[in-house]
Amino acid sequence: MHKKQEQILLGHGSGGRLSHDLLKSIILPAFSNPALDELHDGARVLAGGASLAFATDSYVVKPRFFPGGDIGKLAVCGTVNDLAMCGAVPLYLSAGFILEEGLPAAELERIVASMRLAAREAGVQIVTGDTKVVEKGAVDGIYINTAGIGLLQPGADITAKRVKPGQAVIVSGYLGDHAIAVMSERHGLTLPAKIVSDCAPLNKLIQAMLTEVPAITMLRDPTRGGLATTLNEIAGDAGVGIILEESLLPVRPEVQAVCEILGFDPLYLANEGKVVVFVEKEYSDKVLTIMRQHPLAGEACIIGSVTEQPAGQVALKTTVGGLRLLDMLSGEQLPRIC
Amino acid sequence: MHKKQEQILLGHGSGGRLSHDLLKSIILPAFSNPALDELHDGARVLAGGASLAFATDSYVVKPRFFPGGDIGKLAVCGTVNDLAMCGAVPLYLSAGFILEEGLPAAELERIVASMRLAAREAGVQIVTGDTKVVEKGAVDGIYINTAGIGLLQPGADITAKRVKPGQAVIVSGYLGDHAIAVMSERHGLTLPAKIVSDCAPLNKLIQAMLTEVPAITMLRDPTRGGLATTLNEIAGDAGVGIILEESLLPVRPEVQAVCEILGFDPLYLANEGKVVVFVEKEYSDKVLTIMRQHPLAGEACIIGSVTEQPAGQVALKTTVGGLRLLDMLSGEQLPRIC
Repeated sequence: MHKKQEQILLGHGSGGRLSHDLLKSIILPAFSNPALDELHDGARVLAGGASLAFATDSYVVKPRFFPGGDIGKLAVCGTVNDLAMCGAVPLYLSAGFILEEGLPAAELERIVASMRLAAREAGVQIVTGDTKVVEKGAVDGIYINTAGIGLLQPGADITAKRVKPGQAVIVSGYLGDHAIAVMSERHGLTLPAKIVSDCAPLNKLIQAMLTEVPAITMLRDPTRGGLATTLNEIAGDAGVGIILEESLLPVRPEVQAVCEILGFDPLYLANEGKVVVFVEKEYSDKVLTIMRQHPLAGEACIIGSVTEQPAGQVALKTTVGGLRLLDMLSGEQLPRIC
Repeated sequence: MHKKQEQILLGHGSGGRLSHDLLKSIILPAFSNPALDELHDGARVLAGGASLAFATDSYVVKPRFFPGGDIGKLAVCGTVNDLAMCGAVPLYLSAGFILEEGLPAAELERIVASMRLAAREAGVQIVTGDTKVVEKGAVDGIYINTAGIGLLQPGADITAKRVKPGQAVIVSGYLGDHAIAVMSERHGLTLPAKIVSDCAPLNKLIQAMLTEVPAITMLRDPTRGGLATTLNEIAGDAGVGIILEESLLPVRPEVQAVCEILGFDPLYLANEGKVVVFVEKEYSDKVLTIMRQHPLAGEACIIGSVTEQPAGQVALKTTVGGLRLLDMLSGEQLPRIC
């Protein structure tokens, strides 16, 4: 069922179809356990009576500095957000650096300073770490892994299993900014100054939402693979359909224009400071009100709803009235975006 | 006081003097907090009333398969051991893979299978993870980061602050096997078949020791930088002297011979399945008895003792009766050993 390639391809890191195949054909069969098999952004585990979330991500973004952020900010925000998406308040991070011999120390200092700022904004502590140095050419500059521990918010139960037909699908703001900002920096394109990465820690926003509306059923940040891939994962896990209204999707005109020129689809572009929220429709106004009061979710809006059909799939109701199936990302659109 | 280089050098990843300089000049000033500043193998933190240890390491060993192990086994054992050295029972691991485009899938399967076996031996679950793929040439095959959560053993308080003059210094077995096994594989040397990496999860040994002798004051696995560097760190943190007896140091004759030919010192070679233990002398027989009953510590022995002088330093009482100061590893002896 899941195609196994003989060699690792760039697409295996895309977050899309090939990533899923790799996970399901090699990683999950080896490590299978209830916490891992849930395939959330992080694991929900018990330790000494405490209900925790535990998440990790490695960051290999190229270039390491881009409009709106850098690899350090990304490494803190990404893992903080993965914890928040589990319904947890992030507490502690680890930081593992892999450095290339010859990396200017000033660059490392700038990246570390940026991690400190992001950690302060998120209210987390970086409590443990590791630094490896490899010879010139064995790694491209600097890669950072962060892992994080969070405390699950009492009353919250964030899982795809609770996503049911009738629920509203909300997104916290404009789609695709991060991917376009990184891509433009990588290729030296001059873009409108408005297009900067949305990279930000969402945990305080999520904490406010879950405190007021513990009925929220599912949260996910649409990073690699973009909104379309994220929603496909949720539709598949929940066995429901998700129908999006094209006219409601928030995309900056500048990002839309770049996408049209370069042949990208904003629904498949990575975001690093956005959240998709599932909640019963009776709570959607309350959730939107809370979100719009927060500086990171001023443009929050409903973009669609959960349906019975097409079960396990995502469809887009286009502005001209058609219904188009949205698959997961296939292949690799933009490698090393995070 | 801590020299700052303008560029990252291989030695910054050695675990020795340069690693310390990097940590103290760039990393610690940015992230400083009580858990991090203790500079243990992992952090001791509180979460939801639970007393936890949290540790991380990235693994970049070259080659990725070597006598006695591979990068996968190392990635599990290394972090399990870091948690155990904090006095914790390891519970959960994360696994972050960075793969090079073109890596044979069969190699990844072999590495993942080896992680599964090591996790089973240690009794931990791999509950969350991440896979990135970078283009050919951007990473050398595969790097793995693991982070881990453990539960601190009640009654145990493992910290360099409790290391005091009069205590015994115990090591669990032969020194240097891991580094020599990896180095010989890297350079295609034919060595006696006895020399294989000692890579192993020490957590069950440590748990047995701490359950029987909670008075143990300090534990540390002498990995990068070897025994001499590890003991220098502890002597510095505790403000004590440590005097080793050269005649008591357990080094296999085969490893000693290779060291003499190649100009290595076994005291600076990495181990991946050894522990150094500090305990009041009245408990040392009991600790040795427990250790020697365990298959991973059959050669456990006392190698020296804690003294007032030379404060903050480590000295070796040589077989001919002299006293020689042992500094931390300077420069880089064997890069990419873990």
